[in-house]
Amino acid sequence: MKTRIGILGYGNLGRGTEIAVSAADDMELAAVFTRRDPSSVKVLTEGVPVVNVNEIEEWTDKIDVLVLCGGSATDLPVQTPMYAKLFNVIDSFDTHARIPEHFAAVDAAAKESGKVAMISVGWDPGLFSLNRVYANAILPDGNDYTFWGKGVSQGHSDAIRRIKGVKNAKQYTIPVESALEAVRSGKNPELTTREKHLRECFVVLADGADAAQVEKEIKEMPNYFADYDTTVHFISEEELLTKHAGMAHGGFVFRTGKTGVNKENTHIIEYSLKLDSNPEFTTSVIIAYARAVKRMSDEGMKGCKTVFDVPPAYLCSQSGDELRAHFL
Amino acid sequence: MKTRIGILGYGNLGRGTEIAVSAADDMELAAVFTRRDPSSVKVLTEGVPVVNVNEIEEWTDKIDVLVLCGGSATDLPVQTPMYAKLFNVIDSFDTHARIPEHFAAVDAAAKESGKVAMISVGWDPGLFSLNRVYANAILPDGNDYTFWGKGVSQGHSDAIRRIKGVKNAKQYTIPVESALEAVRSGKNPELTTREKHLRECFVVLADGADAAQVEKEIKEMPNYFADYDTTVHFISEEELLTKHAGMAHGGFVFRTGKTGVNKENTHIIEYSLKLDSNPEFTTSVIIAYARAVKRMSDEGMKGCKTVFDVPPAYLCSQSGDELRAHFL
Repeated sequence: MKTRIGILGYGNLGRGTEIAVSAADDMELAAVFTRRDPSSVKVLTEGVPVVNVNEIEEWTDKIDVLVLCGGSATDLPVQTPMYAKLFNVIDSFDTHARIPEHFAAVDAAAKESGKVAMISVGWDPGLFSLNRVYANAILPDGNDYTFWGKGVSQGHSDAIRRIKGVKNAKQYTIPVESALEAVRSGKNPELTTREKHLRECFVVLADGADAAQVEKEIKEMPNYFADYDTTVHFISEEELLTKHAGMAHGGFVFRTGKTGVNKENTHIIEYSLKLDSNPEFTTSVIIAYARAVKRMSDEGMKGCKTVFDVPPAYLCSQSGDELRAHFL
Repeated sequence: MKTRIGILGYGNLGRGTEIAVSAADDMELAAVFTRRDPSSVKVLTEGVPVVNVNEIEEWTDKIDVLVLCGGSATDLPVQTPMYAKLFNVIDSFDTHARIPEHFAAVDAAAKESGKVAMISVGWDPGLFSLNRVYANAILPDGNDYTFWGKGVSQGHSDAIRRIKGVKNAKQYTIPVESALEAVRSGKNPELTTREKHLRECFVVLADGADAAQVEKEIKEMPNYFADYDTTVHFISEEELLTKHAGMAHGGFVFRTGKTGVNKENTHIIEYSLKLDSNPEFTTSVIIAYARAVKRMSDEGMKGCKTVFDVPPAYLCSQSGDELRAHFL
């Protein structure tokens, strides 16, 4: 029997989840839940019902894992504990600083209901976190480096859009090539914020806005831009929508560490992603872990889990024998 | 209480294990076991006894995990099942084709004794295997590429040494840069054996040997060299011992995969290692997994395990709370 997936929220992540489910032989999409009028939501998979979220309780025995596709700012802190009372759930909560409190709330709910609830699944948090943990366990004496991009940062784009006189904007985070090379060569550089990433902004001005003033406000914005080398390009809305609509992203995780009687040997572990579609890759990770959620739940586990808690074999539909024969 | 590690076999891997234990706050080296005369073996750590392997049964309650540092050809197929009857054990068995039968033998022994026995821990098999499994689970529609080097291949060096007229030899496996670039760019190339790796040989001739004949025999050797672009350099024994004594190694694992309604998006996952000391890095991986072996054993698990079966958190001395706060 196939694992029955439910999707809550049908934006970029919801659509990505639907595509990832269709690529998995052992899964099927049972329903899409929405806060909108269901008749206004058209999904890709033929025959899959779109259901108002108010009716979700009727689906508790028809769904094995519910994928929560809301945002980390306001949706998931409420939704994940709430739906962990009814379903095995999985989310991509990515506000790193608030993960401990999210974990605590979700863990309490899932332990009470006897469900498995996975949080913070994707690539960062997610695959990058995994690589940090593996590499730190293996090389205890070393340094970590994480670089993001080239890719659009939603938070930084939003920050620009809040400036008076800005009609629309996209911001690319770009790793500094020379910093990557210094890390890759084993030099263990101490890198400032400015030395690690560039910020490139494409801005559509509102009618009558003062370009020089907008540029100044962007470049001087604390936390977001002041500590970076930032470039600002003013373009038309048409150019923004045609040339900057892509969702490519990626990044790099390094650990460089030393071993030896006199710490004379250097080792460099590098993990990198180059992604054409950030949401489709993120949801591909989520669907692999949804398989693990089902298996953990079938084994009687309960409570909140992260990628650190899941044996890699649980992400796979193959048997242990097959994995050892083909991948070990 | 610290995890008490025993080492069986004191060559490069044994010494590497000793160094890795000394770098771990939560571990201590209890004893080194050897087939040689113990008085002839000098270990690095003060106060650690060197014991003849015939007396190993007296140590069953003084060691938490025994690290088996023998070779895969003849030592481990015998030692791992044998010592899994007495201890929790871990090995670096790396004959990929024979892993299923090794697993079966070790699993039977460890299940009978109630011990945990991990096999094939290191970087390939080991970390590279992990990356193949994670990436395949996430991108089911894609291609795998593994490259090794630059580094010395022991098997290929041995093959050259068996040729008449060869006194000594080292063989480097080198990934072809243009092949790496083609994979990294997402072109999904179909690569022949010759297109992936070069083989570079440094050979010391015996007195009166025919260089041209030796070079011909190397380059035409089936499986080992015939399918590769192979270069042969004749050097003095002194040069071999001074310039080619290093144990650097490394490699690359890629998976390139597609997602999207029409498979229009390409994603590239790359994992690479650049290692100054192959044995010291391998044993650093082993010691991280020895921590996991102890924890699995404490939880009552038994039988044979591989890296696919171990939750990443089990490699770490930190608590779940600490890991989530700092690495997720």
